[in-house]
Amino acid sequence: MLFTRAGIKTQKNAPHDADSKNAELLVKGGFIKREMAGVYSYLPLGLKVLQKIKIIIREEMGNVDACEVLMPALTPLENWKKTGRDQVDIAYKPNEKTVLGWSHEEMVTPLAKEFLTSWKDLPLSLFQIQTKFRDEARAKSGILRGREFIMKDMYSFHQSQEGLDTYYERVKEAYFRVFQRCGLIAYSIEASGGEFSNDISHEFAVITNAGEDTMVFCKQCGWAQNTEISTQKGGKKCPHCAETLDEKKCVEVGNIFKLGKKYTEAFDVQVPNAEGTRETPVMGCYGIGVTRLMGTIVEAFHDENGICWPLPVAPYTVVIIPIGRKEEFETSLLEAKKLEKTLSEKGIDVLVDDRDESPGKKFGDADLLGFPIRVVISPKTLEKGEGEWKIRTEKESKNILLEKVGEEVLKIL
Amino acid sequence: MLFTRAGIKTQKNAPHDADSKNAELLVKGGFIKREMAGVYSYLPLGLKVLQKIKIIIREEMGNVDACEVLMPALTPLENWKKTGRDQVDIAYKPNEKTVLGWSHEEMVTPLAKEFLTSWKDLPLSLFQIQTKFRDEARAKSGILRGREFIMKDMYSFHQSQEGLDTYYERVKEAYFRVFQRCGLIAYSIEASGGEFSNDISHEFAVITNAGEDTMVFCKQCGWAQNTEISTQKGGKKCPHCAETLDEKKCVEVGNIFKLGKKYTEAFDVQVPNAEGTRETPVMGCYGIGVTRLMGTIVEAFHDENGICWPLPVAPYTVVIIPIGRKEEFETSLLEAKKLEKTLSEKGIDVLVDDRDESPGKKFGDADLLGFPIRVVISPKTLEKGEGEWKIRTEKESKNILLEKVGEEVLKIL
Repeated sequence: MLFTRAGIKTQKNAPHDADSKNAELLVKGGFIKREMAGVYSYLPLGLKVLQKIKIIIREEMGNVDACEVLMPALTPLENWKKTGRDQVDIAYKPNEKTVLGWSHEEMVTPLAKEFLTSWKDLPLSLFQIQTKFRDEARAKSGILRGREFIMKDMYSFHQSQEGLDTYYERVKEAYFRVFQRCGLIAYSIEASGGEFSNDISHEFAVITNAGEDTMVFCKQCGWAQNTEISTQKGGKKCPHCAETLDEKKCVEVGNIFKLGKKYTEAFDVQVPNAEGTRETPVMGCYGIGVTRLMGTIVEAFHDENGICWPLPVAPYTVVIIPIGRKEEFETSLLEAKKLEKTLSEKGIDVLVDDRDESPGKKFGDADLLGFPIRVVISPKTLEKGEGEWKIRTEKESKNILLEKVGEEVLKIL
Repeated sequence: MLFTRAGIKTQKNAPHDADSKNAELLVKGGFIKREMAGVYSYLPLGLKVLQKIKIIIREEMGNVDACEVLMPALTPLENWKKTGRDQVDIAYKPNEKTVLGWSHEEMVTPLAKEFLTSWKDLPLSLFQIQTKFRDEARAKSGILRGREFIMKDMYSFHQSQEGLDTYYERVKEAYFRVFQRCGLIAYSIEASGGEFSNDISHEFAVITNAGEDTMVFCKQCGWAQNTEISTQKGGKKCPHCAETLDEKKCVEVGNIFKLGKKYTEAFDVQVPNAEGTRETPVMGCYGIGVTRLMGTIVEAFHDENGICWPLPVAPYTVVIIPIGRKEEFETSLLEAKKLEKTLSEKGIDVLVDDRDESPGKKFGDADLLGFPIRVVISPKTLEKGEGEWKIRTEKESKNILLEKVGEEVLKIL
């Protein structure tokens, strides 16, 4: 893809109203545009990151046998009356009969009812990747806490508590894989269920300075608690493995809940068991803030020059920067396009910075936009059929034969 | 994919409230669920169809050099005041400062302003595939006219009217390709611009009985007009090629508009030209109702037994139905899974009906769900290493060596 056709426009200065590192860098880099407090547009580069995160999530939800659906944002108020959540103050109500979905238990439960005609239909797990609306009193921290945001929400239905317990652990593992594949180290923290449940729930937290919460955790065994409810603190010994505990700010990127029968009872979901007796399924729910995850990745991976995207979620894996004056630039650009073609054929996402801009501006933008690998092609490197290879997060660069670039990229992908 | 894991649940009877063929068949087949008037959930099979339509649209919009973005549904009322569209009665207003986007000129124009710092940034074309909200007085015809629906909307910006005119024709061609790839024959009809424009616009219409409009058209040269404004009618000679004209009901599946400077002036978009003089770009907009397109395909392709999906948008291309009693069923199922593996490796989308149901039920569901190719594996066909091959829209079936199935599918894909 050519830079001039990719719909990228970086800004010289950080936005004056950025309230966080992710807002600053994503707006400056032209990944997102702030439209209102807590409401953002996603521009071509930002959308590419989102798509890559979604692919990872879809694969991992498939791995726990969940089926994808898409429920509406317009939901009937009467459904929310059945569960007593019709007066929740974060709910937008576009008219007197309708609520904009801020969570979808009230929709998925009656939906599941249609699937569940026999105990053989259990367990059932449905997920969606969908836009949620929450009238947050204080939208803040860029795309970490928005009024409109993309969420992956999943809901599972089981014949027994044991079935739910087993599935809950499978989803927990899938969640760790999602965050790991996004480059993040997440800790699972036992938490209270809030609006959702009086039962067990877990949050998944990633260490970053932008965090609203603080957790005490053990790097050794993964034990973690929110400091608000923990009797432990940093410096003490881990209650599980006796390693010294750490304490850091963190962002919640996902949460999972055992919901019990609250919703299946409210919507009168009953499924005949093998003996023909009608039983009420138990339910779990599992959320990941997709746009929040994107913001968290930026909080976790940036330096003074810009974003440092982890390979699996980078909008482009490689940026090729041709430089030179006049005819020499044309030669560099030609070689850049040849290299792009070779790499694309290997399935590598490549951007060629074909702009008529100074090398300094191109290098600066490459750092700001955070492409993991940069290859500079200049008249000088071309003399030996080479380009200059640099990893975004490393200081040193090296020259490399252009014909070896593909091989080298695949080694670290 | 196994039927029992695909999240499919067909219903015995057509829904009592179905107001159209698409609603009847899509609900009965478990593609969609009606949640409120004009509001539907998309279930796994329905979502698969939508994804395939989206891929086609994305490819064709890429072919006209458009970049994908994602704008929010929550939009600031103040933007709509600038164009005088703040009082439009189809607009939902979740609070006194916000409108749920029912079209996005008021968002994309200020967004484009950020991209357009020099005349070299023109032309610019941005599209999104996004959920729209319209408080229609009468939501009807299943997913043909909804209050919440998915739309592809694209907006282009040009330095001159000539630039717009040229691009408009390119998009028209791209639209014909989209509809053709979805199996549909679309006619372009010159129309009035409605809310959007006093300038030129075209509708794309597909012939189906569910249509709200009637068009008079020429099969020979493609000339077409809405009967409401046409001086021609069926039986007369085509004004272009003198062929006899037809007259049929039709559904509008897309529309394109030349917007002129209405929005760029309202948002004060000015771009310095090569001489440094600031000029106001002219604008075009281009819509396709994505969910409506799915409904239209069903209206156009069904018979008394169910849907007949065109190959490129079928949720699964091939359904393999193993039959037999007890151990014989297990043998058929084993062969079905082997065949599924072979076909999947060739990139073919396959569903294996592994349900413990009668052959009659399985055949009925295969017809209802509309998979283009059906392969039945029974103890009898297996004696010769064969299966029974049937095309959904053909009456006759034939036996075929299982090892030849992949080849045969690729021939017609």
